Amino acid sequence: MRIDRRRLEQSIEELGRIGETERGGLTRLALTDEDRRARDRMVTWMREAGLTVTIDQMGNILGERAGGERLPPVVVGSHVDSVPTGGKYDGQLGVLCGLEVIRTLNDGGVRTQHPVSLAIFTNEEGARFQPAMLASGVMAGKIPLEDAYATRDGDGVRLVDELERIGYLGPEPCIPRRMRAYLELHIEQGPLLEEDHLSVGVVEGIVAISWSRLTIEGVQDHAGPTPMRVRHDALVAAAEVVGGVRRIARTIGGDLVATVGTLTVSPNIVNAIPGRVTLSIDLRDPQEETLDRALSMIDRLVRTACRREGVRYDLDHYWRVPYTPFAPEVVDAVERAARTVAAPYRRLRSGAGHDAQYMAAISPAGMIFVPSRGGRSHCEEEFTAMDDIVPGANTLLLAVLELAGRG
Amino acid sequence: MRIDRRRLEQSIEELGRIGETERGGLTRLALTDEDRRARDRMVTWMREAGLTVTIDQMGNILGERAGGERLPPVVVGSHVDSVPTGGKYDGQLGVLCGLEVIRTLNDGGVRTQHPVSLAIFTNEEGARFQPAMLASGVMAGKIPLEDAYATRDGDGVRLVDELERIGYLGPEPCIPRRMRAYLELHIEQGPLLEEDHLSVGVVEGIVAISWSRLTIEGVQDHAGPTPMRVRHDALVAAAEVVGGVRRIARTIGGDLVATVGTLTVSPNIVNAIPGRVTLSIDLRDPQEETLDRALSMIDRLVRTACRREGVRYDLDHYWRVPYTPFAPEVVDAVERAARTVAAPYRRLRSGAGHDAQYMAAISPAGMIFVPSRGGRSHCEEEFTAMDDIVPGANTLLLAVLELAGRG
Repeated sequence: MRIDRRRLEQSIEELGRIGETERGGLTRLALTDEDRRARDRMVTWMREAGLTVTIDQMGNILGERAGGERLPPVVVGSHVDSVPTGGKYDGQLGVLCGLEVIRTLNDGGVRTQHPVSLAIFTNEEGARFQPAMLASGVMAGKIPLEDAYATRDGDGVRLVDELERIGYLGPEPCIPRRMRAYLELHIEQGPLLEEDHLSVGVVEGIVAISWSRLTIEGVQDHAGPTPMRVRHDALVAAAEVVGGVRRIARTIGGDLVATVGTLTVSPNIVNAIPGRVTLSIDLRDPQEETLDRALSMIDRLVRTACRREGVRYDLDHYWRVPYTPFAPEVVDAVERAARTVAAPYRRLRSGAGHDAQYMAAISPAGMIFVPSRGGRSHCEEEFTAMDDIVPGANTLLLAVLELAGRG
Repeated sequence: MRIDRRRLEQSIEELGRIGETERGGLTRLALTDEDRRARDRMVTWMREAGLTVTIDQMGNILGERAGGERLPPVVVGSHVDSVPTGGKYDGQLGVLCGLEVIRTLNDGGVRTQHPVSLAIFTNEEGARFQPAMLASGVMAGKIPLEDAYATRDGDGVRLVDELERIGYLGPEPCIPRRMRAYLELHIEQGPLLEEDHLSVGVVEGIVAISWSRLTIEGVQDHAGPTPMRVRHDALVAAAEVVGGVRRIARTIGGDLVATVGTLTVSPNIVNAIPGRVTLSIDLRDPQEETLDRALSMIDRLVRTACRREGVRYDLDHYWRVPYTPFAPEVVDAVERAARTVAAPYRRLRSGAGHDAQYMAAISPAGMIFVPSRGGRSHCEEEFTAMDDIVPGANTLLLAVLELAGRG
């Protein structure tokens, strides 16, 4: 049994026109009119595929294909919201491959023991409402519903009001539910599969993440009459930290990634010595001990850099997410499926968060990656070839079949 | 003959209340209501001192004390506008010391051969309307009047409309005028006088200045799934440039100062590898050759840093002001005056631009510096003690007397 390549490709193209940008990307922020139109289209297709569709209190869409017995479902899920000027594959591809799996089961008249459900989660990207993965977080019991409702976008609009406005404030409770397994197909957003000419990534887990905030206080002064020897320049110290973070990643090596993504200078005028700089440090590694080691090296780095320049600082390691391992039985089922469809594959870990991270807290979970051209994502250049999508979708199909059991 | 310390101190206090901040600083942006009130107060005091006051097309205020013969005047000048949350000494002090010189001449019944004039220039700071020293630039014929008029503040308000609104759009042409000499007393804005326990700086000239703009284009990507080895991080390259600019200043040494004052990251989010960084480089030195040497070292630095990270860049050395030497006869007159009043002094150069810079293009010119506590300026902590201001003002008095000639 294999999925229908042309049907899947047409669905990707059709859904991709909702919120399409001039340069072929996608702007479909959570709970906007574009998001509503994409949701409406999905609900229509899900009903046409015979699914029983429900909407929960967070606007998550669930469509269930009945199983042969009264058992918890195998859930296939992802999201249809995007970042601004993002691409047509992040999120949408996982949802459409899930739909294609169900259509294929229908075509084959396949009965499964466990029901098979399709889930579309609200506000995965965190581009409009923070934090990311908001609705799967509520479902996993990690984020209180009231907090999620009260979240406001950049214009001060509340999430709950937007849910109601677009007609997706549903009646179903958004609570942990029993699942046989949760499976998510997603683009890799990194270069590993492409580099190795592979179509499928069997995801073993999601790396641990640490976020830090560094504020450096120097002495703001006139750039002209202030000799070099009396300066306490916050940006000079910050630059040493940026270079040092890169060196630490190189020294530790392995899978560690370290990024200074934000840096803000005050007063930020040409002829003033910077008096204050704030910057962020994002660290990720599968091993907790590696993050700990990197963090203590960063503590030393910041202390040394700031002492050398004679500036004060405040370093706050304010957020940490532990390593999320996926369930071995699900990972193994994905690997067997990839082998059966003869998809060239490797095992790897996800460097980015996904709804699967929260689902792993309440269910056996796993993910399937397909390659990202150039490793690029969250941009209009985001692309995955159908020649990789098809083996990915077939891997999803066979993994679902194994976990749901033939009826 | 000596100035009246108490009268000068009272004037500094009284004028300093117009636009005073809660913490004892000053916010008196050019052509605001605070600026108008300070101007009105000055005009009243100038008329009370017997000066003939005229306003020119740029709102510059000129008050002339007649000389014994029909000769060009010795002009003493500075400005009364401030930066936001600036101090009570930058600009205002020079204007009030000039007024005190004239009051002292009046008290002594002194007649001079050349007239003695007091000048208050519009928009010296460049905080509200760019560029700085706008009205002295027009007077020197370096900036067209129409360009100055069309300049808009951050809210889009035109300079000419604000001149009219506050009643300082005068009839006198703002053109180069014959002067016997131009003299300006100003705070040093640097630490040299304080470090050497001196009251007076005899300013020999204003350093040469070079401004550059660097834009670095890397590859924006997700901070999670993108391994270190494939990154092209604009901020990592920028940080190497910031550190390198500091090293170049240390290597060349001498009077060279080098500052990266602005640095802006795009997209500036925690989990994105910076795709683009823009930064500024401000270089100052009395020697043109030193600036040239520093600029070629910066060219190499940027090329090396960007090649190492695999990022593209655009480096634009877009503004250059040559060294402005002051007239030896004026500098010598200032030095003789300092010696006569027994003010502890040294010769030095200004690292910041002043209206005197433009006046030097159309007249013999010179400046007198008084110490800045801690070298600080453009902040509410800006402070100069009366024990330093008095010898500074007396130096100005005697230099004016020598240049104007006893009648």
